[in-house]
Amino acid sequence: MLSGWGGGRQGWEAIIELALAEDIGTGDVTTLSTVPAETRAHGSMLVKGAGVISGLQAAAYTFWRVDPSIEFTPLVCDGTSVEYGAIIATMEGPARSLLTGERVALNVLQRLSGVATLTNRFVAEIEGTGALIVDTRKTTPGLRILEKTAVRDGGGHNHRVGLSDGVLIKDNHLAAIGGLYRVTNAILSARALAPHTIKIEVEVTTIDEVIEAVEAKADIILLDNMSLEMMTEAVTIIDGRALVEASGNVRLETVRAIAETGVDLISSGALTHSAPALDISLNFELT
Amino acid sequence: MLSGWGGGRQGWEAIIELALAEDIGTGDVTTLSTVPAETRAHGSMLVKGAGVISGLQAAAYTFWRVDPSIEFTPLVCDGTSVEYGAIIATMEGPARSLLTGERVALNVLQRLSGVATLTNRFVAEIEGTGALIVDTRKTTPGLRILEKTAVRDGGGHNHRVGLSDGVLIKDNHLAAIGGLYRVTNAILSARALAPHTIKIEVEVTTIDEVIEAVEAKADIILLDNMSLEMMTEAVTIIDGRALVEASGNVRLETVRAIAETGVDLISSGALTHSAPALDISLNFELT
Amino acid sequence: MLSGWGGGRQGWEAIIELALAEDIGTGDVTTLSTVPAETRAHGSMLVKGAGVISGLQAAAYTFWRVDPSIEFTPLVCDGTSVEYGAIIATMEGPARSLLTGERVALNVLQRLSGVATLTNRFVAEIEGTGALIVDTRKTTPGLRILEKTAVRDGGGHNHRVGLSDGVLIKDNHLAAIGGLYRVTNAILSARALAPHTIKIEVEVTTIDEVIEAVEAKADIILLDNMSLEMMTEAVTIIDGRALVEASGNVRLETVRAIAETGVDLISSGALTHSAPALDISLNFELT
Amino acid sequence: MLSGWGGGRQGWEAIIELALAEDIGTGDVTTLSTVPAETRAHGSMLVKGAGVISGLQAAAYTFWRVDPSIEFTPLVCDGTSVEYGAIIATMEGPARSLLTGERVALNVLQRLSGVATLTNRFVAEIEGTGALIVDTRKTTPGLRILEKTAVRDGGGHNHRVGLSDGVLIKDNHLAAIGGLYRVTNAILSARALAPHTIKIEVEVTTIDEVIEAVEAKADIILLDNMSLEMMTEAVTIIDGRALVEASGNVRLETVRAIAETGVDLISSGALTHSAPALDISLNFELT
Amino acid sequence: MLSGWGGGRQGWEAIIELALAEDIGTGDVTTLSTVPAETRAHGSMLVKGAGVISGLQAAAYTFWRVDPSIEFTPLVCDGTSVEYGAIIATMEGPARSLLTGERVALNVLQRLSGVATLTNRFVAEIEGTGALIVDTRKTTPGLRILEKTAVRDGGGHNHRVGLSDGVLIKDNHLAAIGGLYRVTNAILSARALAPHTIKIEVEVTTIDEVIEAVEAKADIILLDNMSLEMMTEAVTIIDGRALVEASGNVRLETVRAIAETGVDLISSGALTHSAPALDISLNFELT
Amino acid sequence: MLSGWGGGRQGWEAIIELALAEDIGTGDVTTLSTVPAETRAHGSMLVKGAGVISGLQAAAYTFWRVDPSIEFTPLVCDGTSVEYGAIIATMEGPARSLLTGERVALNVLQRLSGVATLTNRFVAEIEGTGALIVDTRKTTPGLRILEKTAVRDGGGHNHRVGLSDGVLIKDNHLAAIGGLYRVTNAILSARALAPHTIKIEVEVTTIDEVIEAVEAKADIILLDNMSLEMMTEAVTIIDGRALVEASGNVRLETVRAIAETGVDLISSGALTHSAPALDISLNFELT
Repeated sequence: MLSGWGGGRQGWEAIIELALAEDIGTGDVTTLSTVPAETRAHGSMLVKGAGVISGLQAAAYTFWRVDPSIEFTPLVCDGTSVEYGAIIATMEGPARSLLTGERVALNVLQRLSGVATLTNRFVAEIEGTGALIVDTRKTTPGLRILEKTAVRDGGGHNHRVGLSDGVLIKDNHLAAIGGLYRVTNAILSARALAPHTIKIEVEVTTIDEVIEAVEAKADIILLDNMSLEMMTEAVTIIDGRALVEASGNVRLETVRAIAETGVDLISSGALTHSAPALDISLNFELT
Repeated sequence: MLSGWGGGRQGWEAIIELALAEDIGTGDVTTLSTVPAETRAHGSMLVKGAGVISGLQAAAYTFWRVDPSIEFTPLVCDGTSVEYGAIIATMEGPARSLLTGERVALNVLQRLSGVATLTNRFVAEIEGTGALIVDTRKTTPGLRILEKTAVRDGGGHNHRVGLSDGVLIKDNHLAAIGGLYRVTNAILSARALAPHTIKIEVEVTTIDEVIEAVEAKADIILLDNMSLEMMTEAVTIIDGRALVEASGNVRLETVRAIAETGVDLISSGALTHSAPALDISLNFELT
Repeated sequence: MLSGWGGGRQGWEAIIELALAEDIGTGDVTTLSTVPAETRAHGSMLVKGAGVISGLQAAAYTFWRVDPSIEFTPLVCDGTSVEYGAIIATMEGPARSLLTGERVALNVLQRLSGVATLTNRFVAEIEGTGALIVDTRKTTPGLRILEKTAVRDGGGHNHRVGLSDGVLIKDNHLAAIGGLYRVTNAILSARALAPHTIKIEVEVTTIDEVIEAVEAKADIILLDNMSLEMMTEAVTIIDGRALVEASGNVRLETVRAIAETGVDLISSGALTHSAPALDISLNFELT
Repeated sequence: MLSGWGGGRQGWEAIIELALAEDIGTGDVTTLSTVPAETRAHGSMLVKGAGVISGLQAAAYTFWRVDPSIEFTPLVCDGTSVEYGAIIATMEGPARSLLTGERVALNVLQRLSGVATLTNRFVAEIEGTGALIVDTRKTTPGLRILEKTAVRDGGGHNHRVGLSDGVLIKDNHLAAIGGLYRVTNAILSARALAPHTIKIEVEVTTIDEVIEAVEAKADIILLDNMSLEMMTEAVTIIDGRALVEASGNVRLETVRAIAETGVDLISSGALTHSAPALDISLNFELT
Repeated sequence: MLSGWGGGRQGWEAIIELALAEDIGTGDVTTLSTVPAETRAHGSMLVKGAGVISGLQAAAYTFWRVDPSIEFTPLVCDGTSVEYGAIIATMEGPARSLLTGERVALNVLQRLSGVATLTNRFVAEIEGTGALIVDTRKTTPGLRILEKTAVRDGGGHNHRVGLSDGVLIKDNHLAAIGGLYRVTNAILSARALAPHTIKIEVEVTTIDEVIEAVEAKADIILLDNMSLEMMTEAVTIIDGRALVEASGNVRLETVRAIAETGVDLISSGALTHSAPALDISLNFELT
Repeated sequence: MLSGWGGGRQGWEAIIELALAEDIGTGDVTTLSTVPAETRAHGSMLVKGAGVISGLQAAAYTFWRVDPSIEFTPLVCDGTSVEYGAIIATMEGPARSLLTGERVALNVLQRLSGVATLTNRFVAEIEGTGALIVDTRKTTPGLRILEKTAVRDGGGHNHRVGLSDGVLIKDNHLAAIGGLYRVTNAILSARALAPHTIKIEVEVTTIDEVIEAVEAKADIILLDNMSLEMMTEAVTIIDGRALVEASGNVRLETVRAIAETGVDLISSGALTHSAPALDISLNFELT
């Protein structure tokens, strides 16, 4: 079990810096004017709901950036399922520093745990089907890496992180290319110019496009907003020659039926753009 | 009506930079490898839901940062209520640039419009009561200013922006101060040390604390998680000597009853931490 | 007593970074070419004047940023009055690092102690009157928070920190609004749109405007450049219904008479824009 | 005559960014809540004192960063002497933007004009002596380049900008080197290791050290805190073999006598660390 | 043909900022002290060697950042082969700005053209073999994206850009995993945890490892430092079931024989870490 | 001997940050997906060539920024000549962190050691002549300070670091000045306006210009691309009245003859722009 923020560089630190800057502004006047500098406190993070925890390392980093003398001790690992009332971390340090860092740490932790919790519900729905739940680029601005980690903490898998680590030819790319055989042309063009180390995925909406994509040797075929019947037919046609991903109208009520069509991957933007926060609070007592 | 991003400095630009950096990484390989540099396109932003729009200026800025030659034209103002199918903005420019900026612009716009839409539903619920819906510091990391603007676009009002522009003495501050008369002591201490230009608010949970806060001349009294009866009693006791704010258990089903107790302000973190995104998409065609 | 820079994030670190960058440039050639890397030194900070010290934490941070192995020990607290010859801090560490950090640390400390010293003279002048000396936004670019702290160290109080934590309607705002009842209109407009957590202050220059401001329920009324007689009349009219602040022509020779008119606050830009530096030097010896 | 900020990169932009950030914070609530977005205004910068102007380009940049649509027109050049009542610049643009940028622009301009004005008084004192007034590194943190420019605008000359563009061996370097012949050793060491493109200056306090410095072929010899007699003797000994700089106890009353000893350069930290601001104000009217 | 820097965001701008900052420091004293502000000049970029041009857009950006009023006109496109004496760009503008930007623009252009030129020689050597020349991560710090573009300008192809857009299991990863079947285990582990959008490559040094990699379904197999005979055998075994990449001992004299073993890709760090600069100079004349 | 990165601020840290950011992107997927978090490793840096080492402190900093818990121990000092097979540093720490930092640390170290090695060969060629080998501003963007240090590590000396710490009037400056006596005019102008702490150097190409430069009292005269005969004549004319620097056509085969003309300094851009990297690799084993 990690004891606070490990210290290794993660890549997501900038959003925490920004969040602290916007919250603290020119100083926490309430705390500075009411709490003596020498007061020390002990805090406990209490979960007021059931869910999957994600973001403890980011919370640890938040307190570390406010005051490196705060000792933050997570009691569970990211990815743990907890019930109402669980204490997931404790912290010790100057009361002023704890009060100043509290809100940003909770904002981050609540949001990421919300993402992990929602992902986990989708994963549970499709248990046993062999399909994977994957995220999208519809993440909260600035939180991309943390939310992608939260999806994994919830049992999901990650799609590409951003525009530079995967080729995904979408409807608007095809519109910009235009003409006949544009699916084929796009795939050939990407294969010629993109690094050979990343796969080529294409979004299709008709069976004709599915066939074109398979023949042009797409690595991954994204079935966008297809009916269950059409998806089943597409899976049959593709027949293992490419990975098959489904997207569109993915809800808790519909996801199992989608998984049962035989697709390999089911992606949903809602995992990150519409997950409600998990309620977590922080209780202080003097030490 | 504004024509794109005005150009004046807003204070929220950093989150857009961060979002573009995390999305674009070392370059949009799909677009660069499949769409010719000289292709130009026209795009329309289509709302696929009903709601209140917020974030058009941030979307305009996003495209401007990707490529200043993109012409972004909003067709409505922030704060406008729209129905399913509304076109809220159009854009013209190099297809590559439009494709590269699309996702970040939509992520920002969808989230902010989600906040404005949810705020608007709360505001509608309490119409005629005289109370105001206000936000909290439970905002998305990095999006504080944009989300506070979205709350105003939805008809709500803003609480303090961060820790430096308002004194709000909360339960954890009182815990850190300790002892008898801690509400009084905290208020006196804040009045002595904080700038005289910001008001002093204190969070209370009992009628005794309400009385103590009034007598210590708090400017604003925050009734936290009180029953409707207790709130009514508190309002009667305070009797105009301080602004009264209610928080805790604020939902669409409960908010009107809370407003009818006579409180001045009702604050809810859910406006910003749990608002589902408004569905908005971008359709391109060649020009 | 603190032992060096506490380590908690303060908000003013950026100006120290900038000052070090502009001074060190691509390296301290004198020190690198004349002092061996292994030489260690002991330094003492000596005050060559009488005054109030401010900025020791910023000085400690400066040396910490040059070399975290420097041990900086303040011998007095910020806010202490000292006489000529006082030693206010000592430091130990690599001679190269001490020599490289010396100038920036002294530049910061001398300026802030100059502000605290001048503030203290104003405060002494009005002792017993009940009025408070407050600062303005006429601070040195980049040093806002540090100079506001220096004012408090000198016994003064702070006005709003910047444009986002207080409403202050000045002559140029009124000019931009124009028309009859512009004082009233400005106050009403600010009350409707600004967060309810910050007070509304208005600058007035005539008795008519004083009356208008009181009736529109301004929280603070700033009497700008009024004669002593007019100030006395204004205080009588306001009669406790708003805080009263005086500004304009505030000098050591005039400040007591202004305080005796009964105003609550006296603000002066000279505290920060024209305070002469307190002379402080650093003496090294080998260890 | 320049028309606003030229646009070329200057190196001092960072301090303006910092000053705007600390002043504007999360937004100028007064202006946003009281002045309509469409109001336009005309402003005039009025000097309320006599002095030498410096910083117009920085002021122009400040307004440009707040809103590039502001048109800023300087009416005089930096370095111009003006009398009470001079209008030195006008500006046109959105009233909101002008109000938001006003304070930072004035803070910069008042300080720099204060430095130019004070420098100019020293320069006038020594007219005809052949000596030059030069600045030091005792500048305001973050304003180094702008203040060095202000010194030139006032008729002074610049010493090295920072630690990397000149070798200046001071008392604390000599203390760190220690031993006999430390002046000689320091000069030889610097000549061997520092770039051959920068001169070597050494600070001396006795005639013996003067002789040692000349013999070791110092390029510049800094006479620190010497009596007029000792300075005269030093000048005679050096006899043109090095540039001679005087420092210490340089005041308006003493500077001419120092110049008349025959030194080439007289440096004073007071030019930048203790110059009182020149009073400049901004008047708006609607357009 | 582009006319100067297009203005769209590229991702490599930071290194130009850094290069300008380190070169200009606190200002170009030579130019400022010898060339009048109003002098205008015309410059021509002359190639003094034969090679392939790369970096014109970066050079354009460099001048744009020094002074947006400079007009930079490229006369050829990146990727063009030129002979000794070719003029590849002209520029017009204030002489001071041209002089200040000259060195950084040339440093960037010479280095990138050097990379494109060397790449082109490798590509020419293997013409007709069907193999591709690809780069590595052995790039100049800060210039990754620009150098990868230079490789493409020279006719080569890109390997992954960095650690996040490709899985490449190298000898040190295998050492850290340890045990039997570590090639297999590493591939299975990467397939389970890495995004499904990037390919999995493994570095092997023996025929046994080749077999293990094929059976574990690696997407790309990197033959490191193998003899030509071993490479030929590996290609036969792999038989199209994975892409085959060769690395190690790749020189102009050896590259064709490597290509003729039938590998798909040949990677060489020397393309970027040891390419000599192409000699390019800038000639000014007054206008 | 230093043990890892000393911790003192060096000025070159930004390029390491940039290099890590561009390499790590959103995370090292290979390492994260194949190497367990708890694995620890030991690494050795092995030189596969003969040369002079430079950059160990930068390599130490690189690992420190990836993970401060890595212990990096240099076994030699920068400036040491090593043979094939030398182990120059060892490191211990989490295997993941070592793998993630490896490439950037090696890229920096190989390049800087390449510069030191090439410089050393030039220095060896002119041994005993009394001339010094100096660098230029033709450095790798972002690596200026590190490469200048590498030149010193190789036994060379440094020319000015950038545009602000030396006056060097070049052909393009003279072109921009124009007219008769432009060498004289440029020198006089620089002496009047540049800080007196930096020397004035002028580039000349004819004997007439040499004479003009000497008479105008240039501190340093740069003979650009002169024949050996002309250089000899110039040295005779200058006769110790200025430092003499030679540049142009400086190669290992020509440098001794140039030195023997009696010039004081020989500068070469090739030291930094075309030095091949020294081959260094990193071998890990489990601990």
